[in-house]
Amino acid sequence: MSRQDTRQTILQNGAKIIHSKGFVNTGIKDILEASGVPKGSFYFYFKSKEDFGQALVDYYYTLISSIFEKHLHDRNLPPIDRFKGLIDNYCKIFKNLQFTSGCPIGNLSQEMSDLSEPIREKLQEAYSKMRSSIRDCLIEAKELGQIDARWNIDDLAVFVLNSWEGALMDMKLSKSIQPLMAFKNIIFNFIVKDTSASG
Amino acid sequence: MSRQDTRQTILQNGAKIIHSKGFVNTGIKDILEASGVPKGSFYFYFKSKEDFGQALVDYYYTLISSIFEKHLHDRNLPPIDRFKGLIDNYCKIFKNLQFTSGCPIGNLSQEMSDLSEPIREKLQEAYSKMRSSIRDCLIEAKELGQIDARWNIDDLAVFVLNSWEGALMDMKLSKSIQPLMAFKNIIFNFIVKDTSASG
Repeated sequence: MSRQDTRQTILQNGAKIIHSKGFVNTGIKDILEASGVPKGSFYFYFKSKEDFGQALVDYYYTLISSIFEKHLHDRNLPPIDRFKGLIDNYCKIFKNLQFTSGCPIGNLSQEMSDLSEPIREKLQEAYSKMRSSIRDCLIEAKELGQIDARWNIDDLAVFVLNSWEGALMDMKLSKSIQPLMAFKNIIFNFIVKDTSASG
Repeated sequence: MSRQDTRQTILQNGAKIIHSKGFVNTGIKDILEASGVPKGSFYFYFKSKEDFGQALVDYYYTLISSIFEKHLHDRNLPPIDRFKGLIDNYCKIFKNLQFTSGCPIGNLSQEMSDLSEPIREKLQEAYSKMRSSIRDCLIEAKELGQIDARWNIDDLAVFVLNSWEGALMDMKLSKSIQPLMAFKNIIFNFIVKDTSASG
């Protein structure tokens, strides 16, 4: 494998382990073992665990943005239905994960924001892009009259993404889909005007 | 000091360190050093780090519930104003913490839910009590016509607490009060009927 391929394999295996165990809790040794890469060669691919952490945020964001884009950029559907499709897709993903793991960007934000400024900056950038995708969708929804014209879209985008992240945290805690359903019920029955969305 | 006092001192110092550094990231050694307790005596007070973690959740919950009760049980104010008082108080607390640390119960839920079933159970219990306090307040608000009668209060309580936790995660990530302000603007301008609350 090329250096670039091996680096990608390390990221892929690290992403999987860290998604379930956390960043601090995962040793470089565990990641290298899972990747079939010899011990001691980590620093050939990454300057430090922190440098790996920054690359990991990019790796997670690439996965997330492909899911976000698949739904939010689907011009065949009205904007709120696109957003609802995104949420439904994530509900399926987390059912399959038996309500473990949660959002990798949310997890790392909670864990690393006070511990590493370079990782925090990367996370803030990724989270901000996730929010922008939602905001763009909400702007379209407002223009089409799918949501109440009184909403401040910037606040709403911040609020909606954060509420979703909080719901994922509660899902992980309660090992249940109920927090995600409560999110759906409130967001799609009251915040948006789409009356077809009864949860 | 009595055994009970020393145990409490260990919890108090552990709570402080873990609030800023995380559970896995904090060694028993660090906690004992900060507590002025000899190394090796930890197991006189706790069966294991996991046992300490369970006691820690109780310790955090006691602190949180005293803040929750101070505001949410204040019968001199209408229910929504009590909830608003709670949120304003937390905004002050987190300003003083320079938007670090976040909610200790939320942090541990994110970090420990998939790692320790006994700690997860304790956290779920604490989180459920926090939600009940908010639900009781929302039930009163609904009875007094302060919030829309269409709301399902159980869903709303789940949603409101989770949205707050998500806002705190974003605050920690962005090192800014803006996510907390977006929460206030949405919750108090739209979800509740109280028009005096313009953020």
